[in-house]
Amino acid sequence: MGIAWDEISISTNKKLQIVDITRDVIEIVENGKVKDGTVTIFNPHVTCAVCINEHDPELWEDLLEAYQRLVPLKGNYHHNAKYDGMSGEQNAHAHILNTLIGQSVSLPVKSGDLVLGTWQSVLFVELDGSRGRKLVVQIAGK
Amino acid sequence: MGIAWDEISISTNKKLQIVDITRDVIEIVENGKVKDGTVTIFNPHVTCAVCINEHDPELWEDLLEAYQRLVPLKGNYHHNAKYDGMSGEQNAHAHILNTLIGQSVSLPVKSGDLVLGTWQSVLFVELDGSRGRKLVVQIAGK
Amino acid sequence: MGIAWDEISISTNKKLQIVDITRDVIEIVENGKVKDGTVTIFNPHVTCAVCINEHDPELWEDLLEAYQRLVPLKGNYHHNAKYDGMSGEQNAHAHILNTLIGQSVSLPVKSGDLVLGTWQSVLFVELDGSRGRKLVVQIAGK
Repeated sequence: MGIAWDEISISTNKKLQIVDITRDVIEIVENGKVKDGTVTIFNPHVTCAVCINEHDPELWEDLLEAYQRLVPLKGNYHHNAKYDGMSGEQNAHAHILNTLIGQSVSLPVKSGDLVLGTWQSVLFVELDGSRGRKLVVQIAGK
Repeated sequence: MGIAWDEISISTNKKLQIVDITRDVIEIVENGKVKDGTVTIFNPHVTCAVCINEHDPELWEDLLEAYQRLVPLKGNYHHNAKYDGMSGEQNAHAHILNTLIGQSVSLPVKSGDLVLGTWQSVLFVELDGSRGRKLVVQIAGK
Repeated sequence: MGIAWDEISISTNKKLQIVDITRDVIEIVENGKVKDGTVTIFNPHVTCAVCINEHDPELWEDLLEAYQRLVPLKGNYHHNAKYDGMSGEQNAHAHILNTLIGQSVSLPVKSGDLVLGTWQSVLFVELDGSRGRKLVVQIAGK
């Protein structure tokens, strides 16, 4: 069994933003030695998320609008009140959305290729930007 | 380390629909050679989802009603507007729900058996049917 | 390839409650023989969930309030109506939230250590307490 590690760096420039990281994941898989197994993109942050969906900027607006409608940026959040005045900590919405969207994704690797459906892209979801983010990538298999 | 691949085909006949695929997963695990490890049901589609919950048709109505209440089928979606007039693309709600419900599930395999709680079933969640769907199943272990 | 199994027992005393289980997971990983791989915390229940986020009791109140706002404890649920009068089954909200928050989490293990971001804790989310719960922990790797 082989296990390889890598990382993906992302720099966001908006409060909420979707960044397509599919090319990064494909490159890591294609350059790796594991031909059959699983690649996991693990998000070590608590105010952003990763998911899999279509590469469609219009849809990304829909996603971000729906997320904000379900969990508004401004609300009577205890977390925000505790850190009243600290602009970097007014982000309870981002924590909550992280637990709903999900914090990591795993994709199969088969015969050296990433298994992705026709319309699937790996999407990074910034919920409290702008920030620099670093995702952990693990490939396990043989 | 062994890795085995299989797939599960599903044919849905409603716009939103839950299909219990537990039997398919159990059969794949029981017929496989991997006795200890993990089975992953990976959904290569972007407008349906998989999750784990109870086999209870009344609860499935509750799930589908809650999903539609949280993310209505009709809304001012940019994705739908872009594809105005294309009936197969009026599905932003399904994309959004896919990112919330989740796009794959992994279950432990122990001594040749699928590890499932008493009330757990593996559920396929159609969000934009009716369609034919195909899920990728991977068993990794030893 | 090695696979080890363990479990985490949790006793909750509120209807909705968050319990930090990070120490349990770290202990299991540190006492295990697998030095590189993945630890999966698999929840075999259908009315509670696991996720990863910050250790912050004020934030936990925000999480539980948001979950209840999105999926109210009382509603016209078919599941609850079917089990009318059975107090232990008035829990459709918990089933629905389980499918949104997620039913298991996987974390990388690298050189014998759990890979966790600075602000990350492993959180158990009780949605229909008080109850005794038991989570399955699997470590797979080498």
